[in-house]
Amino acid sequence: MQCFTAGVVQLDTGAVKQDNLSRIEALIAQAARQGALLISLPETMNIIAPGQGAESSEPIPGPTTDFLSAVAKRYGLWIHGGSMWERSLNGKPFNTTALIGPDGKVLSTYRKLHLFDVQLGDGPGIRESNQTAAGNEIVTVPTPIGHFGLSICYDLRFPELYRLMALAGAQILFVPANFTSTTGKAHWEVLLRARAIENSCYIIAAAQCGDKPGYRAYANSMIVDPWGEVLAQLPQGEGVITAEIDLAKAARARAQIPALQNRRADVYALTARNGGARS
Amino acid sequence: MQCFTAGVVQLDTGAVKQDNLSRIEALIAQAARQGALLISLPETMNIIAPGQGAESSEPIPGPTTDFLSAVAKRYGLWIHGGSMWERSLNGKPFNTTALIGPDGKVLSTYRKLHLFDVQLGDGPGIRESNQTAAGNEIVTVPTPIGHFGLSICYDLRFPELYRLMALAGAQILFVPANFTSTTGKAHWEVLLRARAIENSCYIIAAAQCGDKPGYRAYANSMIVDPWGEVLAQLPQGEGVITAEIDLAKAARARAQIPALQNRRADVYALTARNGGARS
Repeated sequence: MQCFTAGVVQLDTGAVKQDNLSRIEALIAQAARQGALLISLPETMNIIAPGQGAESSEPIPGPTTDFLSAVAKRYGLWIHGGSMWERSLNGKPFNTTALIGPDGKVLSTYRKLHLFDVQLGDGPGIRESNQTAAGNEIVTVPTPIGHFGLSICYDLRFPELYRLMALAGAQILFVPANFTSTTGKAHWEVLLRARAIENSCYIIAAAQCGDKPGYRAYANSMIVDPWGEVLAQLPQGEGVITAEIDLAKAARARAQIPALQNRRADVYALTARNGGARS
Repeated sequence: MQCFTAGVVQLDTGAVKQDNLSRIEALIAQAARQGALLISLPETMNIIAPGQGAESSEPIPGPTTDFLSAVAKRYGLWIHGGSMWERSLNGKPFNTTALIGPDGKVLSTYRKLHLFDVQLGDGPGIRESNQTAAGNEIVTVPTPIGHFGLSICYDLRFPELYRLMALAGAQILFVPANFTSTTGKAHWEVLLRARAIENSCYIIAAAQCGDKPGYRAYANSMIVDPWGEVLAQLPQGEGVITAEIDLAKAARARAQIPALQNRRADVYALTARNGGARS
């Protein structure tokens, strides 16, 4: 396995889809010029317009993935498409990652598993599940450049998911996100680094930035190595960061601290109910 | 539930048991003067003498826990005894925590579950399991001042354990340790804060400090709140830190980010094989 450069595109996605896609193309081109072979985009990269998830949703493949496929093919890149609203039959869209190969094909999709549902006192609460359908599958994707594990934003708070992906063979874990500045400041870097360390995996975390309706996005896109070191970080603003991915580093981290082997499967059981991560 | 002060004793435990216990008593007295109602000690608090785990091991109850019981009773304190070598029938001692109430009774014990076993190439490797017997039970302890979850050092790298303790009701998680300065600098604070954040629990982490045979202990004992904030920290040297424990903070963190409720138990299963944590 040879080393390669990964790029992360940080975005301030707004309400006009075509504008967002134009800036995405320019930033992907910039990352490609910096040598990136794999590029990751943030959560809901193609549109952020509250309450319009269903209307702005698309099938996959569809217009947005066709666009990403064309860009992937043109530059010969792997594109991890962050996430977008994927149309579904029951009206509520999924929050879905499309992974696209250098030949432009959609290789895999992952639908966000964990939705933020909170009830505070007797009030109405916040229920992401009112507007979003949750996925039901853990997804890892073996590729010629590494074994990927897919996740989205709030998933980061659930170590079970990342452990299962690492046990299924994942070496590079994606966490496209749109954290608020409050929870981002308190939790984002700590949780990203912990997922890297406890699973001896790379973490590629593309973030939204800028002022969104009702909150400020935390930005701070990161690439973290399997020892937990932050290799690249973008504190604010749209832009690109890159870092070298060397899977031998993941192997070395696993040899130095063999936590994946020293688990006590005789004392606790952690299993994917569908028989393992889908690859 | 009222608030109380927790204290952490950081130690440079050496090879002479009686010297170590004398300093422990003085530091516990200091923490009590600072208002602590609960005091936690580090891993292998009563002796560090490589290769002498079996010889220095004791039954529980035994001389060292009798000593801690007397101190607990004298000051009216809860003492989390970090860990000590517990004698076992098969010759290999357990690395065991004794939890002692203000009446001097040993309320519960926990035997370290995860042992560091690594094989590098064709060499002999490092096998903690050659000298130590592993425990087989997850242990949480409901008390009048909070529901405790017990763990020791290397356990910190296994999020499954802490998740299961939180799901069993734990609000305060103990991580007595003896990290090396290398892995401590890279991983200690990140993993402690992640366990606090992902489970909305307090973390009480008492550490060894000083030069040990073959390495330098990382020190940096910490008390972390359920939002992941480090409330108190001791960068080096023997001493005491204290912080206020307010279980309403854990409840607030769980209300703000209900990750324990938003888990996808229909997609993955995490279970303790013995039917749940022992309480």
